[in-house]
Amino acid sequence: MVMISLDHTHDPAVRSWLDSANVVGTDFPIQNLPFSVFRRRGMQESYRGGVAIGDQILDLAALTATSALDGFPLQAARAAAQATLNDFFALGPNAWRSLRHALFVLLHEHAAPARFSTVRSCLVAQVEAEHTVPARIGDFIDCYTSLDHARNCMRIMYPDADVTTNFRWMPQAYHGRVSTIGVSGQQFHRPMGQSVPPGASAPVFLPSARMDYELELGIWIGQGNAMGKPIALEQVDEHIFGISLLNDWSARDIQVWEMTPLGPFHAKNFATTIAPWIVTADALAPFHTAWTRPVADPQPLPYLESPANREAGALDIRLEVSLQSERARREGRGPARLSGTSFRHQYWSIGQMVAHHTAGGCNLNPGDLIGSGTISGPGPGEAGAMIELAHGGQKPVPLGDGDERGFLHDGDTVVMHGWCEKPGAARIGFGECRGTVLPALVV
Amino acid sequence: MVMISLDHTHDPAVRSWLDSANVVGTDFPIQNLPFSVFRRRGMQESYRGGVAIGDQILDLAALTATSALDGFPLQAARAAAQATLNDFFALGPNAWRSLRHALFVLLHEHAAPARFSTVRSCLVAQVEAEHTVPARIGDFIDCYTSLDHARNCMRIMYPDADVTTNFRWMPQAYHGRVSTIGVSGQQFHRPMGQSVPPGASAPVFLPSARMDYELELGIWIGQGNAMGKPIALEQVDEHIFGISLLNDWSARDIQVWEMTPLGPFHAKNFATTIAPWIVTADALAPFHTAWTRPVADPQPLPYLESPANREAGALDIRLEVSLQSERARREGRGPARLSGTSFRHQYWSIGQMVAHHTAGGCNLNPGDLIGSGTISGPGPGEAGAMIELAHGGQKPVPLGDGDERGFLHDGDTVVMHGWCEKPGAARIGFGECRGTVLPALVV
Repeated sequence: MVMISLDHTHDPAVRSWLDSANVVGTDFPIQNLPFSVFRRRGMQESYRGGVAIGDQILDLAALTATSALDGFPLQAARAAAQATLNDFFALGPNAWRSLRHALFVLLHEHAAPARFSTVRSCLVAQVEAEHTVPARIGDFIDCYTSLDHARNCMRIMYPDADVTTNFRWMPQAYHGRVSTIGVSGQQFHRPMGQSVPPGASAPVFLPSARMDYELELGIWIGQGNAMGKPIALEQVDEHIFGISLLNDWSARDIQVWEMTPLGPFHAKNFATTIAPWIVTADALAPFHTAWTRPVADPQPLPYLESPANREAGALDIRLEVSLQSERARREGRGPARLSGTSFRHQYWSIGQMVAHHTAGGCNLNPGDLIGSGTISGPGPGEAGAMIELAHGGQKPVPLGDGDERGFLHDGDTVVMHGWCEKPGAARIGFGECRGTVLPALVV
Repeated sequence: MVMISLDHTHDPAVRSWLDSANVVGTDFPIQNLPFSVFRRRGMQESYRGGVAIGDQILDLAALTATSALDGFPLQAARAAAQATLNDFFALGPNAWRSLRHALFVLLHEHAAPARFSTVRSCLVAQVEAEHTVPARIGDFIDCYTSLDHARNCMRIMYPDADVTTNFRWMPQAYHGRVSTIGVSGQQFHRPMGQSVPPGASAPVFLPSARMDYELELGIWIGQGNAMGKPIALEQVDEHIFGISLLNDWSARDIQVWEMTPLGPFHAKNFATTIAPWIVTADALAPFHTAWTRPVADPQPLPYLESPANREAGALDIRLEVSLQSERARREGRGPARLSGTSFRHQYWSIGQMVAHHTAGGCNLNPGDLIGSGTISGPGPGEAGAMIELAHGGQKPVPLGDGDERGFLHDGDTVVMHGWCEKPGAARIGFGECRGTVLPALVV
């Protein structure tokens, strides 16, 4: 994602004929054009691909039934109009880019006025839509690539231990659960599981008492690779379709007990929530920044090192987490902000994650999902998980209404937002990733 | 898998009109009837479901085009005749059983002679067939449930440490890689990866020098469960379709370096090989035995405990691993036997694995695959991995022809067999799981 060059679709001065796309602070200006799979709520319709513009969704199934597109963009739009985006992903970057450019022309304020009514007839208001997981996910892995997160957690969970030596040598990862990935709005029951209460010598089987979230990004694989043919760091760009917000819900008490030696299992596999919108790698092109690491740290092995990655491997995506308790919802208050940071602090880049993932011969398929790992920044209010913010529950975080949280309560809704902004570029937003903890089902 | 009662399909005296099904020592008598997905080699055909009988495969796609079946068994056979068995799995135990019983009638030596020629026209010789992964696998987990394996490995990898305390409290597991699961005959390149050579202070990126196999069984989920609705131990039978041989290839040097804190990733995700045949839970019904554990060990928590599991939770499946080196193959010698054991020694039962897997609310889908974890027995020649047999490479295992192995060499083919036998029951075989290590592709 470091070699994508800027073109006219990144020009912040361009406006759409659709007014809501030009509103200051919108997540979805004409320069963004993120993808999702949606249908109108309560209409018994089929799910199909759509592209966000302002407060609307451009329905690709409807659009491909008009004469607005032809040639290669039409072919790409037909693939993207299905109930999953996998076929569209598999077409590769030229198809993704040709459709982006064609939609940009159709939505541009200088589009041929005859187009307006055709395209307008294909719009569905976002407030009328519901979304689903946008691809058939073959495999989901979750990384561990924020040094600040790793340090914070080690301090809390194993006070005498430093971050493991291997952390600075490779973007670590584990395979996660596909079947419990849900889209924003997901509600799930607090998991039951084994944990060892403080002072106890044997585990109990109870609802998790230390429910947490993890602020992450989900990286969507576009084109895959063949088994035994790793993706070199320099080639990663051709394989990344785009990025969503992702919440890697975690039960910390279950995690501490089960994690040695095989890693997290029950502690994570009960639910993972993704935002509906996949922001394309193309839309994020203006927001790359230099990737650096402390001079005292080991320099990456050659397969994790490239000049382009050093120059532009980091991505400045701003992120924010907030929490709405059941009481706040009942009393009509919105979510309270918990923390905010940027993905640019991440110790390992997306390119390095993908290069490492495939270095042993593992193949990726279109629609595979890579969790970035928790994103915590260096400052005190920049942690991406409650366990860090509340120091393992010891210093609960105030919610501003007299309430506070050490870990999540039943009824809590965690809301994540992400956006990119800088002078000379249009603001690119990620929408919202929202999920709610329901009480445990004790059988 | 503990409550399935025996019926006429388990009667060892029954013979088929197909002679090869009656040969002493066959894996596939009429009492077995395992499923796979196959096609004739080199014929440009579609893959479809088939059932093994003697040295033949009963082609379910062909069979459903005849008048041999009708009603519910025909409906089940149509689902099983597809290119994946997922729809058949989803139909549940009544459908699985009704098709098994109907095929038993068609293949029985006392079947109506008019049936012989119809059914015979649907047979394909196993030597003419090739197989593929029999289901679209949504999620794959791999367990860690053999105390002997755990002890052997701890002794070798961390000489001062005992098996972790949590081992005796729950059937541990991690999520594995779906995209690199291949069927018997799989060949894969030795993985590149990070490891720390003896005496070195920093990792290198090289082909794994400690390639290993792991003898396992793969448990195929038939019916799934809804998210948030765990499968109780007593209900597991309704959710297990059957069992295959499975080889969980492992790169031990990569594993030791990467495993803390997130578990195995590169060390396992380059390849996993399964046998083509899924032996049904019904066919295995005669081979359940009592599940016990040492009196000094903790008794299982209630969700992992049931009278039926104690009475019959273990399964006596005999297993054997052999190795054919490239030299042996060139010189016309068969595989050399490395070890043999039985699955009945496993510390945790299949029922406990599934109950634990879903206890936190995780849902399973038809076609999900659960690796049993390495199967090592208590005796010296009963270990299910080379690292155990060769004491971490220190005491290489002789191959009988002057050659020996500490870990696997390029060109080595590992072959696994499994079967059940006891007085009063027909022998039930699992076929063969065979895979070959190719040289690393050094880029």
